[in-house]
Amino acid sequence: MRVKNAAGRTIETAIGDKTLKPFAGAKKYSWCSKVTSLTDALKKCGLKNGNTLSFHHQLRNGDNVINMTLAAARDLDVKNIRMAQTAIFNVHEPVIDFIKEGVVNRIEGSINGVVGDFVSKHPLPYPVVLRSHGGRWAAVKTDELHVDIAVIAASAADVRGNCTGIIGESAFGPISYSEIDAMCADHVIVVTDNVVDYPCKFQEIQERYVDYVAEVDRIGDPKNIMSGTTKITEDPMKLQIARDCVELMDAVGIIKEGMIFQSGAGGISLAAMKYLDDRLEEKDIVAATATGGLTKLICDIYKAGRVKNIYYSQVFDEYSVKFIQEDLGLPADIGHYADPTSKGRTIDGLDTVVLGATEVDTNFNVNVNTHSDGRLLHGIGGHQDTSAGSSLCIISCPVFRKANPIVREKVTTITTPGDVVDAIVTNEGTAINPQRKDIIEKVEGKINLVPIEELKNMAYDATGGPEELDLGEEIVGMTKWMDGTVLDIIKRVKE
Amino acid sequence: MRVKNAAGRTIETAIGDKTLKPFAGAKKYSWCSKVTSLTDALKKCGLKNGNTLSFHHQLRNGDNVINMTLAAARDLDVKNIRMAQTAIFNVHEPVIDFIKEGVVNRIEGSINGVVGDFVSKHPLPYPVVLRSHGGRWAAVKTDELHVDIAVIAASAADVRGNCTGIIGESAFGPISYSEIDAMCADHVIVVTDNVVDYPCKFQEIQERYVDYVAEVDRIGDPKNIMSGTTKITEDPMKLQIARDCVELMDAVGIIKEGMIFQSGAGGISLAAMKYLDDRLEEKDIVAATATGGLTKLICDIYKAGRVKNIYYSQVFDEYSVKFIQEDLGLPADIGHYADPTSKGRTIDGLDTVVLGATEVDTNFNVNVNTHSDGRLLHGIGGHQDTSAGSSLCIISCPVFRKANPIVREKVTTITTPGDVVDAIVTNEGTAINPQRKDIIEKVEGKINLVPIEELKNMAYDATGGPEELDLGEEIVGMTKWMDGTVLDIIKRVKE
Repeated sequence: MRVKNAAGRTIETAIGDKTLKPFAGAKKYSWCSKVTSLTDALKKCGLKNGNTLSFHHQLRNGDNVINMTLAAARDLDVKNIRMAQTAIFNVHEPVIDFIKEGVVNRIEGSINGVVGDFVSKHPLPYPVVLRSHGGRWAAVKTDELHVDIAVIAASAADVRGNCTGIIGESAFGPISYSEIDAMCADHVIVVTDNVVDYPCKFQEIQERYVDYVAEVDRIGDPKNIMSGTTKITEDPMKLQIARDCVELMDAVGIIKEGMIFQSGAGGISLAAMKYLDDRLEEKDIVAATATGGLTKLICDIYKAGRVKNIYYSQVFDEYSVKFIQEDLGLPADIGHYADPTSKGRTIDGLDTVVLGATEVDTNFNVNVNTHSDGRLLHGIGGHQDTSAGSSLCIISCPVFRKANPIVREKVTTITTPGDVVDAIVTNEGTAINPQRKDIIEKVEGKINLVPIEELKNMAYDATGGPEELDLGEEIVGMTKWMDGTVLDIIKRVKE
Repeated sequence: MRVKNAAGRTIETAIGDKTLKPFAGAKKYSWCSKVTSLTDALKKCGLKNGNTLSFHHQLRNGDNVINMTLAAARDLDVKNIRMAQTAIFNVHEPVIDFIKEGVVNRIEGSINGVVGDFVSKHPLPYPVVLRSHGGRWAAVKTDELHVDIAVIAASAADVRGNCTGIIGESAFGPISYSEIDAMCADHVIVVTDNVVDYPCKFQEIQERYVDYVAEVDRIGDPKNIMSGTTKITEDPMKLQIARDCVELMDAVGIIKEGMIFQSGAGGISLAAMKYLDDRLEEKDIVAATATGGLTKLICDIYKAGRVKNIYYSQVFDEYSVKFIQEDLGLPADIGHYADPTSKGRTIDGLDTVVLGATEVDTNFNVNVNTHSDGRLLHGIGGHQDTSAGSSLCIISCPVFRKANPIVREKVTTITTPGDVVDAIVTNEGTAINPQRKDIIEKVEGKINLVPIEELKNMAYDATGGPEELDLGEEIVGMTKWMDGTVLDIIKRVKE
């Protein structure tokens, strides 16, 4: 069939097996400022009962955005929100009230501190779902976790919605976590206290994804935005563990030209990086890349020329924020870093990572989420991602803490399964996962190898063994492996 | 129901209305080099008869990649390929042979020169589909144009597939066009002549999307990669048109602090930018942003501080390629720049753009695709995108060329509909689209306004009017508006 279109041309409505639509008229595309209030933005995005709101956690314990968004939702009389944050902290204590008031009734995302404690004692109607950084990215990408409204904190944004966390008074580093939310959520609100001239000079999130820019007084408290976990430990026992992590790396033979490494932000992990740096210097070796979170320590190694590239997704201290404003390096969003559904991830080339644990067990399973008393007190972070991506995943911990055995028969909660954990370095020696015969062969005779059972026995001897938890049937949460399967169920401990 | 998962934990298989999958075991993620030959990559990507292969055109008339990919397909005895390039040039003359041999039987993408001429005379089984930059991005994004294998030329790539066009001997600027292909195609091959240390320092396309890196001798000929269209015209008549474009801008009142402008790469457009720069200097005004293609002229304006930002998707000359290696500015991929399905595009804030035309008509429709003899000789580029995105879209052209009226009753092919074209600046005066009463009001008495009908009459008087084309029923191609509707049908001219 032929029709005359709006431009006056006669066109076919089908050619071969393809249907064609006639041109119906053109209009100018235009733009207008997206800046409004947070409440207005939420209303215009159609916030309603039962919606899922997502947030990133880069403002850490200085974040105002989650609390103020939920307060705005409460003022709009909205109930039963599902939070889909990448993490929350003690600053988010008001979430407890929002739960009590019925504003929030579900949480999918990393959780710790006071809110974790509350939820552990007062389970929500649906369990808290804990996913790794990469696992969460994949869940949003595949719509396993559908976000109605993504609420994205930015330390600078222009009136069209291009935004960043790299500059501004509340700068926290690249936004990293939220691009997938921006791409997949039905609606997107950027929240900022710093509307800058268009175009914003850095743009982790671009206007193409943004519906509104909510201007607020303060997105956060700069002095609490920076993590408290970036101080190198001064505890001699922990320093020894850190040194032994580096001895293990060296024995395995990975401290060599072009190595790729990552540390967690915990005290032992950071100390291990300091000793690794010393070793790089001694051996006059240049590493290829440091991945993960950026700290002054890593910036210093980079400035000294002992690592060629910084490939980071988070920035943990003020020094590093200022550093990347001048030398951006390679910011990697979480999809690039750790999306398990992608064709290649930054962390898959990791030669080694040093991570912490609240508990480890004789199957090399690691718990970073719950205390041994069963309470959900710690975030999940990228523990799974880096463990699975690294050739040598090192868990560093003492065999016991106070009266609590850290190395034990069975972790309270599995965060990272033993299949991807290679070594546990403790104050009483190093256990290598028996699956990693290649590693054992390389290190035998060079380091103090101790079977994991023995480490457990030492812990039990010193502490009398773990306290038996009186678990009920109520489910508090679950940990998922990054492919979306359920690793473990966290049950309420009877008081 | 409860089951024991692979970590030995008892988990629920459903909670509420949600089904849960038990953890089935973890394995280490690893990576291996993706580098191979082009033929091997095509085989591994399952290239077969009827597939759609996509390409970008940033290597322009120096490109080797399209020809070598089609040659590899021919050697694999593959037929009926649909090409989905962003543009082709005279260097792609071998495509004519690939068509004759049955290797290629359909083309969706900008086309010009010898291949355009051939196809105009020998229509393909399905018409050539011409889409604007933004329209093509949207077509791939919405799966209107499904790509089986994206073949992406890169002037540097690492072994994992992170790649760029910004560095290397064959540097051509940011890849810009291909990210949507990388994200949406079933398979992705990066083609490079420059495998660099991991991680590649610039990464317009990241490993997460890439299946293979095909290493070849030369992706292109550097001296032909840079466009020949970036010379400022020396023709006094054209220079006068360029000056009049700037007079029009000034009369409309848009030459002011914070303006955003773009030029095409044609001679008049570039000259207009030069005069605009002079005017900025005279008025001591700083523009906010220059968008679009980067040339030495724009870099110089930026260096002189008369425009604050360069927001570019293409780089047209060697000077500019070197420039961005040192000062990256704001590269905008085509989705950011012009995706009509997005929530905000870089070009929607354009105060003005100066574009060329092969023909314009009294309805302000513009043709940039076909010669007046009906042959499909010119690329479509971002003409539609910038016209619709700009507040003042200026078309610059003489009223006639040789014996051919440029201003005419009816353009041979509609590329950009008159609804989004605001002014036509010619050597005989300026016509303003009567729909734009606001513009007419502002400029009346300040510039030489001539009704479009009069410009047409001058053209017809001087040339005797347009030649009547003897059009048959065979369809050569179609132009689509950026929303996917059919603007015009291009028919074969009987010889």
